[in-house]
Amino acid sequence: MSHLKNDSLLRALLREPVDVTPIWLMRQAGRYLPEYRDVRRRAGDFLTLCRTPALACEVTLQPVRRFPLDAAILFSDILVIPDAMGLGLSIEEQVGPRFADPVGSEKEIRGLRIPDPERDLGYVLEAIRLAQRELSGEVPLIGFCGSPWTVATYMVEGGSSRDFQKIKRLLFERPELLHHLLGVVAAASGAYLNAQVNAGVDAVMIFDSWAGALSRNAYLQFSLEYIRRILETVTRAAHGRRIPAIVFSRGGGAWIEETARCGCDAIGVDWTQDLGDARRRTGGMVALQGNLDPAVLFAPESSIREETTILLESYGKGCGHVFNLGHGVLPDTDPERVATLVAAVHELSRPYHL
Amino acid sequence: MSHLKNDSLLRALLREPVDVTPIWLMRQAGRYLPEYRDVRRRAGDFLTLCRTPALACEVTLQPVRRFPLDAAILFSDILVIPDAMGLGLSIEEQVGPRFADPVGSEKEIRGLRIPDPERDLGYVLEAIRLAQRELSGEVPLIGFCGSPWTVATYMVEGGSSRDFQKIKRLLFERPELLHHLLGVVAAASGAYLNAQVNAGVDAVMIFDSWAGALSRNAYLQFSLEYIRRILETVTRAAHGRRIPAIVFSRGGGAWIEETARCGCDAIGVDWTQDLGDARRRTGGMVALQGNLDPAVLFAPESSIREETTILLESYGKGCGHVFNLGHGVLPDTDPERVATLVAAVHELSRPYHL
Repeated sequence: MSHLKNDSLLRALLREPVDVTPIWLMRQAGRYLPEYRDVRRRAGDFLTLCRTPALACEVTLQPVRRFPLDAAILFSDILVIPDAMGLGLSIEEQVGPRFADPVGSEKEIRGLRIPDPERDLGYVLEAIRLAQRELSGEVPLIGFCGSPWTVATYMVEGGSSRDFQKIKRLLFERPELLHHLLGVVAAASGAYLNAQVNAGVDAVMIFDSWAGALSRNAYLQFSLEYIRRILETVTRAAHGRRIPAIVFSRGGGAWIEETARCGCDAIGVDWTQDLGDARRRTGGMVALQGNLDPAVLFAPESSIREETTILLESYGKGCGHVFNLGHGVLPDTDPERVATLVAAVHELSRPYHL
Repeated sequence: MSHLKNDSLLRALLREPVDVTPIWLMRQAGRYLPEYRDVRRRAGDFLTLCRTPALACEVTLQPVRRFPLDAAILFSDILVIPDAMGLGLSIEEQVGPRFADPVGSEKEIRGLRIPDPERDLGYVLEAIRLAQRELSGEVPLIGFCGSPWTVATYMVEGGSSRDFQKIKRLLFERPELLHHLLGVVAAASGAYLNAQVNAGVDAVMIFDSWAGALSRNAYLQFSLEYIRRILETVTRAAHGRRIPAIVFSRGGGAWIEETARCGCDAIGVDWTQDLGDARRRTGGMVALQGNLDPAVLFAPESSIREETTILLESYGKGCGHVFNLGHGVLPDTDPERVATLVAAVHELSRPYHL
């Protein structure tokens, strides 16, 4: 099927048979790893780390060197697109992302330009090329972007938000203006993911971290519609094989049936959902990725194995499950517990694929 | 049925017929009202406002004086219980609640004592008595507390949290210790709600604002179980009638069937859920309260009426719906839009009760 020595992630995402359930973890490259903190210190700050291909490549590879994970994911941030649009991103520890020039007025939003990935985001593409060279086909590399809705929340609010007052005011007062903004971000994201595929990623993922801020109707119109547009744009075959697409919809359990029909191959499920229920509701249309509570990695080894079994049993036998957390690895996680989890999934999932 | 001139809230919560759908709003007393900001300024800080019965009574009544709402809700905070336990609460604008002495160790948790409501939380009970005197039966007064899980997150984390790392570490490493903590908070909450009923509230509500931080299994064991215990403790008949109990489970859409069986009369539904779907899944076991996105109140009048119709239609005909937001009124809301919403619900809901 491919040049890959381990292609179980891609197989599972396309609901093809595998021997064991593949596993990777959201934020598997991150602060819980001492070798990450070293590189982060060397880089000085988070954005420099993202923008320096050799360092971004290095931290992308760290977790797959340490653990027998079934995929690497590009180390980057969903906000590099609005940064490339000129909004002036900074990211502070504890505080989170900030834009010096958020958008809100008609003029600001209509004035946005779609970045050229090669020119404006070349550092990401270079990190992908470096990482693929180093990985040399051991495991697939996942590329990603944020959903237009999620990225737009930061662009309008100017940073993280609890209530999303500014963007929701826009949504209800000037829906056509928000649609324009989302259209621009969707076009930029489509071009960006295509450039990532050309640079060598084996699968793509769209993070809709703030899906749960929306009601069902608003989600369908203002988030899912633009995820669909990205997926229509993105090359779905390259390097002689299919490029699977995953959509992670955090807080989006209520509308998983609709998400399953947006053109994705797999849905990333957060930990509040029951995986068996999610499988029944998506009726074999898509693969499912998830959904262990990241805090389970604080538990003793025996509990980690127990929770792994519960999750495997909840999904049940057969194809189409990629093991993952329901959200990112927490910074206080002990790397030894990650090792325990990866081993447990590979060992305990075998009977589910006989 | 009661001494109340308008008892439509109580009827709807008990799934009895009403002429129009009753409406009240979470955080209807709050910063969006200029008269609230005046009292808040006079009080100096939020906690002084909570602790001064005459002022707490005053802000409790403000929204029902301004709008024809079908209920008042006691102005207070879910964290007064741990404050009465001696954890040293402070609440800062923008920052949120902080405990000077959070709990985490065996000794701290085993050392917690259940407050005596009359002695330690008498200011709340006095505010209830004052408010009932002023309301003089116009509309019912709702009392409330937090769910033990939600209150415990603040007690362990020391304030608001994004990841709930500390309490989840406790959950997985020392589950018996967390169970002890939750048991103490449940016992304290049960006694507190009983004291509120004795002081005169007509309905009680338990806020599980952080239900969505838990996976389904963890929710059932660590949150719902303790809500059930509170509801077993609380007097459900007083003043010659039934005292309905509402459970608001934010982010808990995935397990609404289980919540419906916890002993409550009604479930508060957040805005990510489809109300019709929630009604089908709870099959007439409970009433439903909710669930308009609070940001709809930023919309023009025509959109507010439109969204009201969509929500009423989603619930459908018949008993058991209390109109509310899916979360609290946002601080930037224009009070005129609240007036529009209240009028729209009363006008447009009539056909659903013929």
